[in-house]
Amino acid sequence: MKLYGYWRSSASWRVRIALAFKGLAYEYVPVHLVKDGGEQHGAAHQRRNPMEQVPVLEVDGVRLAQSMAILEYLEETHPAPALLPAAPFARAKARQLAEVINAGIQPLQNLGVIQQVKALGSDEKAWAAHWIRKGLAALEVEAAESAGRFLVGDAPSFADVCLVPQLYASRRFGIDPADYPTLARIEATCAALEPFAKAHADAQPDAVA
Amino acid sequence: MKLYGYWRSSASWRVRIALAFKGLAYEYVPVHLVKDGGEQHGAAHQRRNPMEQVPVLEVDGVRLAQSMAILEYLEETHPAPALLPAAPFARAKARQLAEVINAGIQPLQNLGVIQQVKALGSDEKAWAAHWIRKGLAALEVEAAESAGRFLVGDAPSFADVCLVPQLYASRRFGIDPADYPTLARIEATCAALEPFAKAHADAQPDAVA
Repeated sequence: MKLYGYWRSSASWRVRIALAFKGLAYEYVPVHLVKDGGEQHGAAHQRRNPMEQVPVLEVDGVRLAQSMAILEYLEETHPAPALLPAAPFARAKARQLAEVINAGIQPLQNLGVIQQVKALGSDEKAWAAHWIRKGLAALEVEAAESAGRFLVGDAPSFADVCLVPQLYASRRFGIDPADYPTLARIEATCAALEPFAKAHADAQPDAVA
Repeated sequence: MKLYGYWRSSASWRVRIALAFKGLAYEYVPVHLVKDGGEQHGAAHQRRNPMEQVPVLEVDGVRLAQSMAILEYLEETHPAPALLPAAPFARAKARQLAEVINAGIQPLQNLGVIQQVKALGSDEKAWAAHWIRKGLAALEVEAAESAGRFLVGDAPSFADVCLVPQLYASRRFGIDPADYPTLARIEATCAALEPFAKAHADAQPDAVA
């Protein structure tokens, strides 16, 4: 497998966590999202993903994009260790909390959108912080019902896979995860696990200090 | 099952298609997203979904939110007729194309975001049209590889479930689906199917002419 990603892209980071968690080997191919206007907009990456985004996971020559679709693919083809609970309602809750981040927060603060908000003359940091706070507040409320050691029960799931990179990104927009005590506690629990450490943005070959 | 939704909410519409496709009975409870500043922001709906969004599907007293999580739940608990292909790569592609809409387009043109863009003094219609065009163009390219009668192969999938409401919303922002011939052709194919007709925004009890 070949993963086209970027160290700080939270969607790439989700896929790295899942690959590490399931013990799957892969070649990491950095796509620089900033240099020269962004390599993701070049012809080579456009052919991999017409959305001009990372991650793209290449498996046996087939290119898969959209991190949630890739997580589901990895879960179906490499079910153990699992990143979804066994019970239908718990699985739904794990996916719900993951989607609060995937569809409710991240699309509104990703690089392309931030650049567009700035181009319109608005304060892009305030914009991002607004949507991040809305999403994290909702997650904190949900977690009061669903969380054990992790966001849904006592094992890591898609929800935690999405939470960790989102909290890292949140700090860049001036948000202190300590304002969301359950989320901050779960982030620390995840950080102590080897697959999460291995997948961390700062541990990637293309990371910038 | 009880579905809290809104006739024109594309995420509610996705869930209605899946429920109709699988022949599942449900009570429909309209949540008016516009009247009096939006019922989704009221205390009653906040308790159902702290993200203050529709849809919410209540099943045996458990409340599920986020349309993609609900679609997966329905697929797992009522697998036939299927809304995902059988083969792993095809399943991944159906989810990928669904997520292009769910995470790549819809979050940038939903009601709350449009209202915020307008409040910042920017042209909210131009904003929405920009992101919709970017996403539909990418889908049209993907469809050239994956589509048969539907977006992925010859049976309806999550991808089509997301496409139909997105094209309806796109028209509201001045975009003609005919600019994307494969997508327009698949929309027409879906429209001829009874579950899609039943789930259509204009066929809901809370629809406004």
